[in-house]
Parts: sequence; structure tokens; C-alpha cells
Amino acid sequence: MSKEITSRKQDYAQWYNDLVIKGSLADYSAVRGCMVIKPYGYTLWENMRDALDKMFKETGHVNAYFPLFIPKSFLSKEAAHVEGFAKECAVVTHYRLKSDPDGGGLIVDPEAKLEEELIIRPTSETIIWNTYKDWIQSYRDLPLLINQWANVVRWEMRTRLFLRTAEFLWQEGHTAHATREEAVEEAEKMLEVYATFAEEFMALPVIRGIKTESERFAGAEETYCIEALMQDGKALQSGTSHFLGQNFAKAFDVQFSNKENQLEYVWATSWGVSTRLVGALVMAHSDDDGLVLPPRIAPLQVVIVPIYKGEEQKKQIDKKAKEITDNLKELGVRVKYDDNDNNRPGWKFAEYEMKGVPVRLALGARDLEKNVVEVARRDTKEKKMIGLDGIAQYVDGLLLDIQQALFNKAKTYQQEHITPADSWDEFEKLLDEKGGFISAHWDGTPETEQVIKEKTKATIRCIPLKNEREKGNCILTGKHSVQRVLFARAY
Amino acid sequence: MSKEITSRKQDYAQWYNDLVIKGSLADYSAVRGCMVIKPYGYTLWENMRDALDKMFKETGHVNAYFPLFIPKSFLSKEAAHVEGFAKECAVVTHYRLKSDPDGGGLIVDPEAKLEEELIIRPTSETIIWNTYKDWIQSYRDLPLLINQWANVVRWEMRTRLFLRTAEFLWQEGHTAHATREEAVEEAEKMLEVYATFAEEFMALPVIRGIKTESERFAGAEETYCIEALMQDGKALQSGTSHFLGQNFAKAFDVQFSNKENQLEYVWATSWGVSTRLVGALVMAHSDDDGLVLPPRIAPLQVVIVPIYKGEEQKKQIDKKAKEITDNLKELGVRVKYDDNDNNRPGWKFAEYEMKGVPVRLALGARDLEKNVVEVARRDTKEKKMIGLDGIAQYVDGLLLDIQQALFNKAKTYQQEHITPADSWDEFEKLLDEKGGFISAHWDGTPETEQVIKEKTKATIRCIPLKNEREKGNCILTGKHSVQRVLFARAY
Repeated sequence: MSKEITSRKQDYAQWYNDLVIKGSLADYSAVRGCMVIKPYGYTLWENMRDALDKMFKETGHVNAYFPLFIPKSFLSKEAAHVEGFAKECAVVTHYRLKSDPDGGGLIVDPEAKLEEELIIRPTSETIIWNTYKDWIQSYRDLPLLINQWANVVRWEMRTRLFLRTAEFLWQEGHTAHATREEAVEEAEKMLEVYATFAEEFMALPVIRGIKTESERFAGAEETYCIEALMQDGKALQSGTSHFLGQNFAKAFDVQFSNKENQLEYVWATSWGVSTRLVGALVMAHSDDDGLVLPPRIAPLQVVIVPIYKGEEQKKQIDKKAKEITDNLKELGVRVKYDDNDNNRPGWKFAEYEMKGVPVRLALGARDLEKNVVEVARRDTKEKKMIGLDGIAQYVDGLLLDIQQALFNKAKTYQQEHITPADSWDEFEKLLDEKGGFISAHWDGTPETEQVIKEKTKATIRCIPLKNEREKGNCILTGKHSVQRVLFARAY
Repeated sequence: MSKEITSRKQDYAQWYNDLVIKGSLADYSAVRGCMVIKPYGYTLWENMRDALDKMFKETGHVNAYFPLFIPKSFLSKEAAHVEGFAKECAVVTHYRLKSDPDGGGLIVDPEAKLEEELIIRPTSETIIWNTYKDWIQSYRDLPLLINQWANVVRWEMRTRLFLRTAEFLWQEGHTAHATREEAVEEAEKMLEVYATFAEEFMALPVIRGIKTESERFAGAEETYCIEALMQDGKALQSGTSHFLGQNFAKAFDVQFSNKENQLEYVWATSWGVSTRLVGALVMAHSDDDGLVLPPRIAPLQVVIVPIYKGEEQKKQIDKKAKEITDNLKELGVRVKYDDNDNNRPGWKFAEYEMKGVPVRLALGARDLEKNVVEVARRDTKEKKMIGLDGIAQYVDGLLLDIQQALFNKAKTYQQEHITPADSWDEFEKLLDEKGGFISAHWDGTPETEQVIKEKTKATIRCIPLKNEREKGNCILTGKHSVQRVLFARAY
């Protein structure tokens, strides 16, 4: 084995980092908190992005692009928003460098100071609603269903590859509606798009829910979220969709004349997922030998490795491999024939295991005589000799099976890790010994939520949608509660 | 007509701006020099991007993503590069805002000053070659063929929508090679990719050439370019591909061990096109009634407008329109049936003319009886009644014809606007009265080039590839010259 990975048991955080670096997904950069997304990781992101983009377009959205810069004063316009986003951000103060008169380097030219500082967008509600003001006059201009794929910057102090980086890639939808009902419907619809994407493409089961007031997006009236569970029992927020009410319309004075020719403020939503999802994907399915990627978004779905001695054998295998490759490509399968003779088969096996390629075919000279090939699944490590006739169809079907198996496995894990707790002791014990979601009563106050967070580092991940009403007593205060909520420690 | 456009004759620059704004391609933003790319303009860019991305992948390139920020010191590492790019750039000096203790707003927190300032990338050679240092050890790691789709910022003083904006979108390819020959071949190959894209997708004929020393990319040994001609006779640089020699490898100490196990510096290329191409597209084909877009990249290729009185007629037309739409979609045509009854047919005709939709079908009740439909071409304004049987195939073929006609028209214009000049008077006269490329002798010195630029605002756009050798005398100095070069005033 060419590359060593720390095991999950030994050090989960280090295991994750090893996978990202050694699986060639990303690398550290020279800039604090910023990563380089390597070609293999970027192709994974492209596949995720393209699937999401298609879903957005199918639900009537179009893409646009808004400026990277936000004038400082814009951040102050929405009272809650400024609290959430003005704190840690990259601030552009000057627009020119000049040669240092006292040395060889470059210095900031003090004469090129901006009148108003510009912030690198941490999210684009402000600049977008400032623009929507010009685009919306009448009810005929609504709804406005716009999405943007962009980079954003939040100056995080502690960063982790994909999970929390100063710069990250994401999409942000920003829609404008004539009525509250329509905006709420949109926010809920996009949450369902995210949930469908996570479950069907990433094989990642999620809980759909709403955030408590203190976990809400800064400026939202309601934040919908999907929450996934990682293998260490910690939760990971995997997408959010916000009903923004008329907050941004009021902050930026965006009104429309309704059918009765009266002016009303516009209703808004915003929703986003980011490269953070790549981190979720890595942690959800992978094992101690490397990445395990769901076929639907894996950059490479099938790899064929030849096993041979001498040119004559190689030639025969090449011919068969080309045939299989062509057949698989015709079925739309992403396949690679790796006959690079710089590396031995064993090295290649380890390498593609590390990279999480769902299916590996090892094509040997003797197998060829028997008209069979060894098919190895990355997820279960199962190997089988399969007849070469119709092998492409077999592999194509196997990819579907693997996709489903990954989801099922993650779903079982999730189901086994939603545990009710009815006393504080039980709650703490579950958190420390089992992890996962803990379903418990809470008195509904931000104060109690805060105390629980300080005591245990657990937060309320969400109040599940269609939550059962059940009377009970708050796990901490014993006060009256009308429903259980889901707590967990989280990324 | 709902929207007035300034005519080309009246004010070419204003005509261009009217098209961009009223054609819904882009809008000004609240941030100086930055634009908002509206959904219609962004879809056009997406179509261009997707076509290019496919061509990059077919030539063996993969996408990756590098940080937005470049440490200030990186810019100084390559001597020529710093001169070209360190001057006008956005400088991040702080990473936090705080509430102003003396007022209600936000101020930059003086305690959150970065130790080293960060520059928003104007181009990414420096951060990328700093990364390649870790990725390249042996000849086995080469070639490295990576592309990035990203936003970049250059603090331009005078900006114009798409043509010159502070922030713009682009792709930048950055490749690393073991030999000079291979790198030169790559730079030339990518120039040809750009030229093919411009001609086949944008219907924009280009001159392939190399830049003179003074017009070269900062840090390049050779800059290849494609130059297009706009309708006002000015040239527009539409893509560049640079052979960087070992300049960046030396600046960032990127060496590889060759097959003989000796260390050598790596050879590099970089190449890019940007949203500037949208500006080129607008100016190349459009007329005084609005945009004219080539079918291959037009967001919408065909629009169907119903013309009817009463519900009964409408129903019949709807049915036929749906049939045509379905058939066109099956052929891969981007088609829209606009039966929005807020707007009258005449308004719609003007609107889609403005937006440059290549083909319009006007489907009337009486036409339906006769089993015909009126087909209008945007480019020639020609209208014809065409039988409804097989209309989808007809329209599909017409789109190909329009694509070719646009190219032919632009090609004729280009050919008619490459004019030789053999004296200074002739040169000046041609520039002022005819425009276009002027093919003239030049003594090969940057000094002469500079004087010509100062006297006439014309620059050497390129020395065409495969240029004929022809002895002559410099148009300005009368000194010996071995070939003609192409001069023009340019965007």
C-alpha cells in the first residue's frame, strides 16, 4: 500500500483529513483558511453542481451573476443580517499597490484608499436586493426565481478542508414573490430539492426540519434545513432554505404594485448549499481504506486494470478492455482503462480503493481464456468472477445496486442513531457514549438551548417537519414542552 | 416599439450600451466598475462556457479551483508579472468589521489587520505555480493540464459593460510540461481551440497571430492571440494563449527530475477567455433593432407567437404550437411558446427582435387553416410562409443556415477590412476613414510601435501566424522591415 490512512477509531478527524488529501480531493493553500480543490475533488463537485443545477432549472429557476463586492453600508441595512455577517469578513480598503520606495517589495499605495470599504460577499442578500429594487415594479415582474453559483468568503478562525474554509464555492438562490404563501412554498420546495439531491445523488439520508430561533439565518423569519449524520455520530447541516419575510424588501425598499395597483413589499426566500457537501459525502460513506463514493456522482465509476505478462497477453487484454469500455461508455458509464505500466496492479488496486471508485474490473489473461472477469465492489469489498458476455449491462446494474446499498446502510445507521432521552443523565450519557440525534423535550426558550449548548456542546439541530405533538417536560428545566426536538453535537 | 435603441450611426458606443441593457444581458451595479449579469446574459455565457469546457476536456484538460486571494509577496516573485498586474488591484487589508462606537454604522476593526495583505486575483499564475511546486516532482507528474473557471478583479478606471469591468468571469488554463516544444505546442493548440470556438460557435471570424513584445502578457515569452473585428472597424482581442517559458517555474522553484534523474525547471503555458467575449458577440452581429445572436449559443433559438381572436382560435393554435414545440425540442432546439396575454403580438415581435432570437414563428388562425406558418429570420428580417408539415425540420435547418450566414457576413466584412497601407498618409487616412486592420510594414522596434500608438491610437494587433515574408519599409521610420503586421484601433 502506497499511502497510509489513519483509522477512524484511532483519530476520526485525522482520518477525514487523510482521505481528503490522499484521495486527491483538495490541498492546503498558501492562503490561511483557503483550500485548493484538486481536479478529482473538483470533478466530484462538478457532478454535484450539474445535478443540482438541473433540478433548479426544472423547478423554473435561472442563473445570474452578481458582484463579488458588497459596499460596507449595505451590510448595516438589515438589522439582524449585520449581526450575523458583518463580523468576520474580508475587507477591501485599497485599490492599488506600488513599489516600496524603501525596498524591493510592494506596498499598499496610501493614496489609493477607497472612499467606502468593500466587503467580499459572505452571502449576497444585500447586493441582490439592492438590484431587485430596479427590477421589480409590478406584480407582473414576480416571481423572480434566480440562482447564482459563486465563491463566498467568511473569515473563519478554525478551518477544515471542505467543512469550514474561509473561501468556499456554493450556490445561493434568491427569489422574490408577491405573497407570503408563495414565498413559504418556495422555501419548502427548495428544501425538498436539497433533500432529494442528498438522498438520491449523495446516498445521504437527511432529516428535514426547521431551525430554532437562535440557529436561524440572520435576517430570516424561518430557516428550513436538512441535517445528515456522520459516522462519528455528529450531525452536519447539509443545506438551508430561508423564508425571509419582507425583511430585505423593507431594508432595500423593494415594493411592487399589485393587481389593485397598490404598493406592497415583496416577499423573499434564499437557499444555499456549498462545497461543504463534499465533506459530508466523504464522512458519510468512506472507510479505513479510503473514499467510498456513490456511483451517481463519482468522477470515475468503473476502472479496468489489466493483469498480464508480456506483450502478447497485453494485446489481447487491451482488445477486450476496449470493447468493455466502449460498451460501458455507450451506457453512459464513466470508465477508465488504466494500462499505465509505471504502476503494478496491486498499487493500482490500492489507489482506486483510496479514491473510492465504485467498481473495479481486474482483467487477467487466464480469465480471458475462461471468458470471465473479476468484479470488485468498493463499498462491500466483495469480489466475484463474472462472465464477460453482457458484462457492461451487469456493471451498469451493479452501479445502481451500490448506490442503493450505500443509501440503505446510511439510512440504517441514521435510524439507529435517533434515540429518545427522557432525563438529563440519559441525555448526557447518550451524547458521550452513543452520539447521533437525541430526541428530547425542550421548553422552547433560547436561554435553555444556550445552557444545554454550554454544558454539552450539543445544539438543537432541528425541529423535524411534521413533528409529532407530544406533551412532556424539558430535559434541562423540567418545564412544560409540546414536542421533542433533535439535539446533536455537530460540525 | 417598446424600447428605443440609439442607432450605430448616431452613437456606436451608446448603441452597444443600449443593446446590453435593453437586451437584458447585464445591468450596472452599486459597486463601481462591477456589473450584474442578468439571467438572459448569463444563459448566453453558460452556453459559451459549456461549449468551451467540452473542448477543453476533449483536449485532455481537467478543472480545478484555486484561492481567490493571492498573498501580496507572490506578485513580486516574477519580475515582469509584477509590473503588469500589481498596479491596479483590490487589496484586502482587514478581516473584521465592528460597530462604530461613535455612531450607528460599521467600521473596519483596526485590530483585525492582516499581517500580509491579500490581493484579489487579477490572474492566477502566482498562486497556481506556488501550488504546482508541491504537485510536481518527476516527469511522471507531467504534463499537468488544468483549467479553472473563476472570477478575477482588475481595478480598471474606465469600465464598460462586458468589455472592461473591474470584476469579470473567465477561464484560465495553466499547464506544466517537461519540454519547451511540448509547452509551445500546447499554447498553439489552445489558441486553435479558441479560434475554432469563436468561428464555429460565435460565428466570429478571427485572425490568429502573435503579439509584439510590448503587447505580450506580463511574464510570457510569447503571447498568441485571436483578434476579431467589430462593426465600427475597431479590433477586439478575443482570447490569448501564452507560452511562459520557465519564468514561473523559476520564480516559484518548480523543478522535476527527468528520465535521467536530473532536475530541470518546468515549462508553462496559460490561456484565457472571459465574459468580454459576450461584448464581442454583441458588437459583431447586432443591428439597430437589437441583438442578433448566433443560433448555436443563443439562449433561445426559436420563439412561437400566437395570433388569435377569442378562446376557440387560441385553443387550436395552442395545440399546434405544442406539437411544433415538442418536435423542435426533440431535435434539441431551444424553443419557447409565448402565449402570455399581457402583451400583444407586435410588442412580442419587437421584444424578441431586441433579444436576438434567431427564428420567430407567428402562428395565426387563418394560417392554421391553410396549414402554413410565418417564419421570420432575425438576421435578414426575411419572412416566409412555410407549410406546417415538417416545419420542425425546416426550422432546424434554418438555424444552421443562419449560423453560417452570420459567419459569412462577418467574414466578408473582415476580408474587406484588411487593407494594405504603404505610406504614412495612407495609413492615417485609412485609420480615420475606413478603419479595420491595416496591413503595414514596421521596423520591429517597440519605440516605433509606441510612437505610432501615440500619434494614432492604433496598436499592432498581431503578427499573423504563417505571415508572408515580404521586404519593405516601416510605415513610420522608413527603416527596413521583413513583414507586414496588422494595426488597428482596438477595444
